[in-house]
Amino acid sequence: MSDGAAVEKATIIVFSGDMDKVMSAFIIANGAAAFDMKVTMFFTFWGLKAIQKGNLTGKSWMGKMLGFMNRGGIENIGPSRLNLGGMGRWMFKKMMKRRNVTPLAELLRQAKEQGVRLVACEMSCGVMEIGKEDFIDGVEMGGVATFIAEASESKFSLFI
Amino acid sequence: MSDGAAVEKATIIVFSGDMDKVMSAFIIANGAAAFDMKVTMFFTFWGLKAIQKGNLTGKSWMGKMLGFMNRGGIENIGPSRLNLGGMGRWMFKKMMKRRNVTPLAELLRQAKEQGVRLVACEMSCGVMEIGKEDFIDGVEMGGVATFIAEASESKFSLFI
Amino acid sequence: MSDGAAVEKATIIVFSGDMDKVMSAFIIANGAAAFDMKVTMFFTFWGLKAIQKGNLTGKSWMGKMLGFMNRGGIENIGPSRLNLGGMGRWMFKKMMKRRNVTPLAELLRQAKEQGVRLVACEMSCGVMEIGKEDFIDGVEMGGVATFIAEASESKFSLFI
Repeated sequence: MSDGAAVEKATIIVFSGDMDKVMSAFIIANGAAAFDMKVTMFFTFWGLKAIQKGNLTGKSWMGKMLGFMNRGGIENIGPSRLNLGGMGRWMFKKMMKRRNVTPLAELLRQAKEQGVRLVACEMSCGVMEIGKEDFIDGVEMGGVATFIAEASESKFSLFI
Repeated sequence: MSDGAAVEKATIIVFSGDMDKVMSAFIIANGAAAFDMKVTMFFTFWGLKAIQKGNLTGKSWMGKMLGFMNRGGIENIGPSRLNLGGMGRWMFKKMMKRRNVTPLAELLRQAKEQGVRLVACEMSCGVMEIGKEDFIDGVEMGGVATFIAEASESKFSLFI
Repeated sequence: MSDGAAVEKATIIVFSGDMDKVMSAFIIANGAAAFDMKVTMFFTFWGLKAIQKGNLTGKSWMGKMLGFMNRGGIENIGPSRLNLGGMGRWMFKKMMKRRNVTPLAELLRQAKEQGVRLVACEMSCGVMEIGKEDFIDGVEMGGVATFIAEASESKFSLFI
């Protein structure tokens, strides 16, 4: 995973919590990993949903309200458009299945398997009252310095 | 268009189908091409609208419904904000015309003329039931590997 | 700030006018500046709000309407989700304060202090009828060529 300068890197900030964007992020991450790139995904704000376990989060009443309205977990993610109260999520899943497109949960599993580094933004976690225990296994916590360090050495960096 | 490593590259993923974002994508692409960079635009999900002919798409009832609700064609694209049922599109077009801003259809024409490579994401096309025949001339189909290959060699890559 | 090729650069396009995205942009910009990178933030479309003074803008009735509906100023910026008529802005500010997260206005001040270059997109300003006098001190005007020049030399470039 790190034999120095020889390894090519890619860094992806996952800001969005929309199904279609999160999906793009994982497809790019897995694609780059398949090309032997060392990929870091940095999850922040709404993107944190993708690596949460799916339990309700929050300590204060505001945090609890936010946790309820923005429930995490990769299975609870809807598309950015035409969601129509969950109908879009159902329809997209159906259309993707027909075309044998890898579902989101499987993309996440593949990313972990390929050694994609999953980092949760400490600051967003603090604001949104999400703890380390609310994330799936293998997620590490990190700050903006982690992102800058990786992005500065990356062949490409994306904000999704 | 390709005298090897000497040419500088730029890669832009056009995920959004919003007028303002698509416009930014083409302005950057044309700007980079004007600086003799080799530019690849990779259209995925809602961004596919920008390079569609504008006919209705879809085979299954779900695909048809999606094709109807998300009709393609560069002239059918509205802004991400303040669209107000098409009013925003009309107003923005008017405000841009007053300022002699190049309209979207013309930006697309210039991009093609400058040799900007237009790639449609195979996977999204599959899911959304959009075929090669639904795109304007000069669009090629490609997968995530195409993106990774270009992005890895690019001076900058953007996800729009 | 400029001893030639030795300085590492980062370029961020701020397209969005949403509190959470603008915040991410400034946190990344300030983080990179703290690592001695030379950072250029290029504000376009809705992102212009972040560097406006907050007065009403526009000359034609359309420009005035737009200026009213999309009022600028870093204090007038709400989150991309769950805004709920301003309630989200209030709640996020409160949750950030509790966690001692630097508020947006302070992030902007720090960026200026650290020498982050703030560029307003001339074309968007023209379309949206926003003049140089509508921006805070220290903002320069620039076009796509400014962006391409910086991005081509940057370690990473993001579209936010």
